[in-house]
Amino acid sequence: MKFIDKITSRLDSINSHVCVGLDSNYERIPEILKKSKSVSQTIFDFNKNVILATHNVAIAYKINLAFYAGFGAEGLEGLRLTNHYLKKHYTDIPILADCKRSEMGESVKMLRQEIVDWLGFDCIMITPWFGFDTVKDLLHDSSLGVCIFVHDSNPTAAEFQDLELTNGKHLYEEVTEHVVKSWNTNGNIFVEAGATYPKQLRRVRQIVGNNMVILTAGVGAQGGKAEDVTGIFGKDGKRLLVNSSRGIIFAGEGKRDYFLAVKEAAEKLRKNLLGISLLRL
Amino acid sequence: MKFIDKITSRLDSINSHVCVGLDSNYERIPEILKKSKSVSQTIFDFNKNVILATHNVAIAYKINLAFYAGFGAEGLEGLRLTNHYLKKHYTDIPILADCKRSEMGESVKMLRQEIVDWLGFDCIMITPWFGFDTVKDLLHDSSLGVCIFVHDSNPTAAEFQDLELTNGKHLYEEVTEHVVKSWNTNGNIFVEAGATYPKQLRRVRQIVGNNMVILTAGVGAQGGKAEDVTGIFGKDGKRLLVNSSRGIIFAGEGKRDYFLAVKEAAEKLRKNLLGISLLRL
Repeated sequence: MKFIDKITSRLDSINSHVCVGLDSNYERIPEILKKSKSVSQTIFDFNKNVILATHNVAIAYKINLAFYAGFGAEGLEGLRLTNHYLKKHYTDIPILADCKRSEMGESVKMLRQEIVDWLGFDCIMITPWFGFDTVKDLLHDSSLGVCIFVHDSNPTAAEFQDLELTNGKHLYEEVTEHVVKSWNTNGNIFVEAGATYPKQLRRVRQIVGNNMVILTAGVGAQGGKAEDVTGIFGKDGKRLLVNSSRGIIFAGEGKRDYFLAVKEAAEKLRKNLLGISLLRL
Repeated sequence: MKFIDKITSRLDSINSHVCVGLDSNYERIPEILKKSKSVSQTIFDFNKNVILATHNVAIAYKINLAFYAGFGAEGLEGLRLTNHYLKKHYTDIPILADCKRSEMGESVKMLRQEIVDWLGFDCIMITPWFGFDTVKDLLHDSSLGVCIFVHDSNPTAAEFQDLELTNGKHLYEEVTEHVVKSWNTNGNIFVEAGATYPKQLRRVRQIVGNNMVILTAGVGAQGGKAEDVTGIFGKDGKRLLVNSSRGIIFAGEGKRDYFLAVKEAAEKLRKNLLGISLLRL
């Protein structure tokens, strides 16, 4: 199945825009789950519970690998177990590797072996700094998704991404145009743009058109407001994913029923976004 | 010890500019080394031999993690064994993590745990696309090196990096200036610029001044010529590292004595570069 069809058919079929960021930092996992278990098993058990609590509203799971690799081989094994579990029991839900990587030439094959064959992801998220070389060898197989960070959500994202070019565009606009006009030759590319820069996010939607999926981040813990995504939901209001990580997976901290709180946080974001998706500018 | 002192004192004390790219793709390791051994042990044994053959001319070892992670947990274990062996037996030689990563906020700590604590590197190589956020939490500890990719060597590096800005600069010049003027607050940053773009490499040297270490790549297998680095060696001709990966570590392919050929390839590059370092433009 084509990756893009997998993600758009899920957007079309379940009434949600929520992407759950499974950034399961071992240090923040409840102590009760750690008792006499290995790091990998603890992470895996935590993730299974989060998945159980969120799978019916999750369009996709996005995973920043650093939160696993930071705990070494055990952390990565916890990640691998999680992804293979998802692939077995939740075959409809795509898993995005938030690795912010850029390989080219011989090492692209290695990146694919790492992210897809070993760790079990469906999509690789690429930093565009080094140009087309970093994606060209990932395009032939449309079962693999490729997501490009065209404008991120972090405070200094604008430091370079918003620079003005002599051709009248901002750098992020130029990058987005390249993605749409010359990179996306096989239809398996989509883009990420942060909700903490609502003007730029809106401009990215204009450039990519209404059919391309946009993943946005920065709503929630990073300070972006849900209102910032009004009007950029795309075709039939179903071409936008809004990622939330800590705001969902650690919503149980201090609560009596941890994973019920996780479930409620995901559902609250889903409802909130559905309300906004109906608004017009 | 400060990372920058470690690398400059090695540049000052051994008569070489060679950085050995230990990109030990398991597939290209001689079959004879693989016999009845695990993947991690094979990689480790291969690397030990390469280190034995090159340590006296290696200013540093640079390792692209993808060539290890592409072989999963076993590959990364081979990398970890290699780095910890280097740290034990070759304490003077810095090890650079060519990971092309960009983390920010909470995940920077994780990146450090992965690259430094687990895998044993001395330096993290960062892609600047997301701005200062990606380096600011790596600056306080001067025993850690931070290398920024200001202009890479790959064919499409110029696609964005050479774009002209309305302030009269090219994007890579703007990035390089940021690194020098506002990022390098604790003196542990240096830069990478590809030798396949000699004009830009020369410009980067102008911007960073003669004291900063530059790592260059693309001499050898990627088509850059040693002549392209004439005149940019910096202070006392000792502030330039020239990386070669496949051209050195796989130089033994088809030869009777594999690691003798590796040794000779490293020494040949060393001699070649020393000759050029004496030339004036």
